[in-house]
Formats: sequence, structure tokens, C-alpha cells
Amino acid sequence: MSINLPDQRGPWLRTSTQIAYENPWIQIHHEEVITPGGTQGIYGVVHFKGRAVGVLPVDEQGNTWLVGQTRYTLNSFSWEIPEGGAHAGETTLDCARRELEEEVGLCASSIEPLGQIHLSNSITDELASLYLARGLSQGQQKLDATEDIQVKKIPLKDAVAMALNGEITDAISVVALLKVALTMPELMGVEAGTPLKAAAFSAVV
Amino acid sequence: MSINLPDQRGPWLRTSTQIAYENPWIQIHHEEVITPGGTQGIYGVVHFKGRAVGVLPVDEQGNTWLVGQTRYTLNSFSWEIPEGGAHAGETTLDCARRELEEEVGLCASSIEPLGQIHLSNSITDELASLYLARGLSQGQQKLDATEDIQVKKIPLKDAVAMALNGEITDAISVVALLKVALTMPELMGVEAGTPLKAAAFSAVV
Repeated sequence: MSINLPDQRGPWLRTSTQIAYENPWIQIHHEEVITPGGTQGIYGVVHFKGRAVGVLPVDEQGNTWLVGQTRYTLNSFSWEIPEGGAHAGETTLDCARRELEEEVGLCASSIEPLGQIHLSNSITDELASLYLARGLSQGQQKLDATEDIQVKKIPLKDAVAMALNGEITDAISVVALLKVALTMPELMGVEAGTPLKAAAFSAVV
Repeated sequence: MSINLPDQRGPWLRTSTQIAYENPWIQIHHEEVITPGGTQGIYGVVHFKGRAVGVLPVDEQGNTWLVGQTRYTLNSFSWEIPEGGAHAGETTLDCARRELEEEVGLCASSIEPLGQIHLSNSITDELASLYLARGLSQGQQKLDATEDIQVKKIPLKDAVAMALNGEITDAISVVALLKVALTMPELMGVEAGTPLKAAAFSAVV
């Protein structure tokens, strides 16, 4: 990549940059900066080479599918919506369709965007694209060699409760579930608000 | 840190680890692994030394305060709830109180947890603790040398709409706003659900 320095970023001035670490997924940039306060400093930026994608499948009976796996980074088990990373040249929408079929074995006749989120913007530039998948039909599950996952079908309402009470902690999953619960409560087959309050109050005990 | 290897992590086996990069905020671990599929691979883990904290202030008139700044990692301006990182030995709750006063100049008589989220668990171990601050009174804003921020007071309902329509993309902010909108809609002075649908439908155009 070609870099023109110094590089003004709002009130920040980047005066040098070097790649401190790289692997197929991330690149660590060690940069010298002048802070907004005018002091000299350094910034370690974690650049993500790929786009993160999360896709929330919902069927006509108000069910969704969660994927469970041990997250290596946390050494703990995590229930999440189907997620993956877009391959080079792959759109995030195509990635959402691919991951939904590979991980859960479902095809979707309708995929709607649920927006994008910056997951960790203090240190990384990671961007996630979220989708809602409907019009589901049976496809063919195909897991990667690195994937050892569990899949469970549960009511969307229960998955939203898990996002509120802390059983689901993955940011992509929580945002997708709460956006749908707030804006399309009819997909849960519930009146907006009321049934979710109880789950939430237990979350903040 | 002392590391016992090999280290079994669910279906993953970690066979080596080394620190590839370090600064005051993060440590990059380059690790050799045996994947769940039994193949040899590598994993670059971004270890966060500190805990991220986000605090959503809400007053009795249904207003909140947003903090706007250029995020260096994105080189773009971002409106967010007050956020920061817990200092060594500081609880996340104390950090929430400190950041709320330092960034926005508000003291809170009540701070309730809104849960924790793992922001980017495919590559990092970053954990964020979220809080709701109420019983607000005027304090003393004290900005760090690295902070060049704007603060605006707006209706909580409008901030939730920003989280739904993509004007707010920061994951910590989106999760805190949507959790409160779903579970305490009375804080927005609105009936649960209805007014939020419009904002959301515009979000998925």
C-alpha cells in the first residue's frame, strides 16, 4: 500500500507507519502520531483484511437458528447467529447467503440488510455487515475444517432474551437480534416491548 | 505470563505462542494451533490489556448525551455514548462514573449494569461492560490531552433512531441504546415499539 505522510486524521496527525505483524486475516500498524492535544504518541491499529458478516435467519413460525462454538480467543463456548468473513471479491450479501447454508444448511429467498457496525473502533477498523434472512428452505450444510459447531433452532423471542440477559455476548449477534426485536417485533409473534422487559430486568440484576 | 503448552481450547489445541507486538493497550499473540479439523494452522490473537466501558446517561426528561470524535482507526467522525477504558485497579463501574464526568461533565446518583459484550471474538478477547446512568447532576468536564470531542444533548429516542438508521455505528453505543430501548422504553417517553419501526425501516432501505 502507498502511504502519504504526514497524514492528518481529524485532530490527529500520523507521522509514521510500519507493519508490525501480519497474517492472512489482520495487519498490525505501529504508527507515530501527534495527538489532538499536540503531544507525541504512538497508535497500534489492528487492520482487518476482510469484512465480518452476520446473518439472522427467521422462519414463518418465529424461529431462528443459533450456532455454538468454542471461540479460540476467549477459550469459552459462545452461542451466536451465523457469522463469517467475506472472501476476496465476495460481496457481504453473498457471504451471508454462503455462511447461512454452510453453517446451518439453510437457503434464503429474501435477505435484507440490518446495517453495519464498527465492532471495536478504539483499536481496530473492523466493520461488520448484518443481514436478516427470510423465506428459508433446506440447503446443504458444509463445515470448514476449522469449524466444530453446534446448531440449534429456537424461538427468535428466546434468542432475543439470551441477548438481553447475557447468555449471548457476541456483539454482532446482540446487535442483529436487538435491531430485529425493536423494529420487527411481529417476527417474534409478540407485542412490542412487554415480553422483553422481564428478560431484561433479569439481565441487570 | 506463564504458559502451559500444549493448551486445549475446546476442539482447538494451542501448541505454541509468542508475543508478536505489544504496546500499552494491546498485545498480539502469534500462536500455532491444531484446528478442530486436525489440520495445522496459526492464530493471531489481539489481547486487550484493559476493559472497555460504555455508559449511557439518561435524564428525567428522556434526554441523553452523545460524544462525537474522529476515530483515528477509521479516520472518520463517530457519535457515541461516553466510553473509555478502565485503568489498572479501577472497576468498570468506577470507570463509567469517571468517563461520564470527564467527557460529559455529569455525575450520576444511580448506575445500573446493562451487561457485557465481546466486541470482536474472532480475533480479539476484548470485553466491554455497559452501564445506564441516571440521577444526573452537573460535574466538571476534564478532557485528556488525546481527546478532542464534541458533546451534544439529544432526546434518547433520537439517539436510538441513530443506532437503528446507521448514524451511530459504534458497537458499544448501539448495544447500550438498543438494550435500553427494548427493556425500558418508558425512559424514551414512548410506547414500546411503534415509534421505532419507522426509523428502522429507513435503516434497511
